Amino acid sequence: MNTSSLRIGIIGTGAIGGFYGLMLARAGFDVHFLLRSEFDAVSEHGMRIESAVHGTLQMPVQAYADVADMPPCDWLLVGTKTTSNAEMAPIIAKAAASDGKVVLLQNGLGVEKGMRPLLPENLHLLGGLCFICVHREAPGVVRHQALGAVNLGYHSGPAADAVVRQNIAEAGADLFREAGIDSKAMANLAQARWQKLVWNVPYNGLSVVLGGSTTPLMADPQSRELIQALMAEVVEGARSCGHAMPEGYAEQLFSMTEKMPDYWPSMYHDFVQKRPLELASIYAEPLARARKAGCSLPRIEALYQELAFIDRHNR
Amino acid sequence: MNTSSLRIGIIGTGAIGGFYGLMLARAGFDVHFLLRSEFDAVSEHGMRIESAVHGTLQMPVQAYADVADMPPCDWLLVGTKTTSNAEMAPIIAKAAASDGKVVLLQNGLGVEKGMRPLLPENLHLLGGLCFICVHREAPGVVRHQALGAVNLGYHSGPAADAVVRQNIAEAGADLFREAGIDSKAMANLAQARWQKLVWNVPYNGLSVVLGGSTTPLMADPQSRELIQALMAEVVEGARSCGHAMPEGYAEQLFSMTEKMPDYWPSMYHDFVQKRPLELASIYAEPLARARKAGCSLPRIEALYQELAFIDRHNR
Repeated sequence: MNTSSLRIGIIGTGAIGGFYGLMLARAGFDVHFLLRSEFDAVSEHGMRIESAVHGTLQMPVQAYADVADMPPCDWLLVGTKTTSNAEMAPIIAKAAASDGKVVLLQNGLGVEKGMRPLLPENLHLLGGLCFICVHREAPGVVRHQALGAVNLGYHSGPAADAVVRQNIAEAGADLFREAGIDSKAMANLAQARWQKLVWNVPYNGLSVVLGGSTTPLMADPQSRELIQALMAEVVEGARSCGHAMPEGYAEQLFSMTEKMPDYWPSMYHDFVQKRPLELASIYAEPLARARKAGCSLPRIEALYQELAFIDRHNR
Repeated sequence: MNTSSLRIGIIGTGAIGGFYGLMLARAGFDVHFLLRSEFDAVSEHGMRIESAVHGTLQMPVQAYADVADMPPCDWLLVGTKTTSNAEMAPIIAKAAASDGKVVLLQNGLGVEKGMRPLLPENLHLLGGLCFICVHREAPGVVRHQALGAVNLGYHSGPAADAVVRQNIAEAGADLFREAGIDSKAMANLAQARWQKLVWNVPYNGLSVVLGGSTTPLMADPQSRELIQALMAEVVEGARSCGHAMPEGYAEQLFSMTEKMPDYWPSMYHDFVQKRPLELASIYAEPLARARKAGCSLPRIEALYQELAFIDRHNR
């Protein structure tokens, strides 16, 4: 691949956009960052990753405050919150080249379905699942604690043929791999999104409700039981929607979390910053899909109802 | 009844013991209050109820710091936390007359079963369910917001005959009624305790987890749904243990709560004061009984696991 001819745009330069964008820029890609509140800081000082894996990486970047100033990008990586997708769609459309590929690096279900009608038909839409412990520490500064893999799947767009769709996902995974990031193309995006929920549903929600990061949540016998019960309900919900998980998948995520450094999930940061919580994509949509398939997930529903109350009183 | 010949002891002069003890004293009963941290304040200033129903009631009372100084009491009303029952049992035994009646004015299941082996066999043990919005506002000062009924049931003791047992419960209810308090003797204490849980399980737990009193909990659509779902699980658990609720019982408690003044349940006060939460009697014991009867209560279990985590990190 001739990396020099490709243009990559980063929409939403928080922890996720900042980390992957800067890793791609370091690898020699032509990366353009659209920023809002952090524009001044990043224009002046560049961006910095403080990584437990890669060390410290500080670089000047091509930063924009207005999408009208950006050149058309072949790939757009979207790391904004799902709660602002409707507002971001016209911005993404403006930043994209005519056959651009838009990758939603977001959690939960239904994010592509919601974005699709808001984007021009000529744009390819993909989903990306990030397995990474990362958070924004200060304007332009991202702390990377562990992991980093990104798995991509094609959702919708001009490519109708399954082989072409998979090739586009593979091309996306190639970009990440060239930047030293573990990445896979996935044939079944919906299945992959359900799999990611096995982690997000318990840890995101409980970090807010219990005010606990992963280490205390994994240390207490009762919260461990609850995490395992919530994970089992996600697996059950996925199965009801036709997405059987690999054997032992939940157990594997559970023991992976035990080995992780202490981590505050993104929803906790959203809560503390009084931002809207990503409840629609992580809770409401999976619950609705399972319900439609005749499957009741009482613990997830209870957790969602608690979070909805907390979210409404937090703003 | 010759009220002057009866001696009533109040063990645990918090909100519940303070309110009912002072109402009984006002009615002319010979009431003796065992106090701990509030002894000095109550000895000096007496006790005060500030009641939305009865107005302000301030009286000197017979206060004791040491059970050894109390005269033997015919009736003992126990308003301490269930979490300290093992510690209170020898104190109760010392304060009781030889055929004394001990009434546990406490919430949850299994409190009499736990207390019984710790009391002498000659003592009668009863349970009492208080339907009241009351809290301790300062040493010796109780704020009474609404309601007030007490229902009593015989649990165990020298009275083997059902008629005699019911007569003792009736005699207890008579005391309260003479003090102007709505009171009934119940033939089935276990059933009554399950019925009280229909209120305690949702509101006590959610007040802690969501940091909300009854008014916001009843105003939010999602917490309303969660309260109703939790109530339905208590009804289900009770039925599995052979205690069918009256038709529409949960709906009735739900709409009663809507009409109540804004209220912080006792568990919230315990949480704020960093006291142990009454999780064993209100959550663990009902869950264990339902489980033994083959009944799973997933939302109550999840709430219990959250509360157990919160309680452990609160002290």
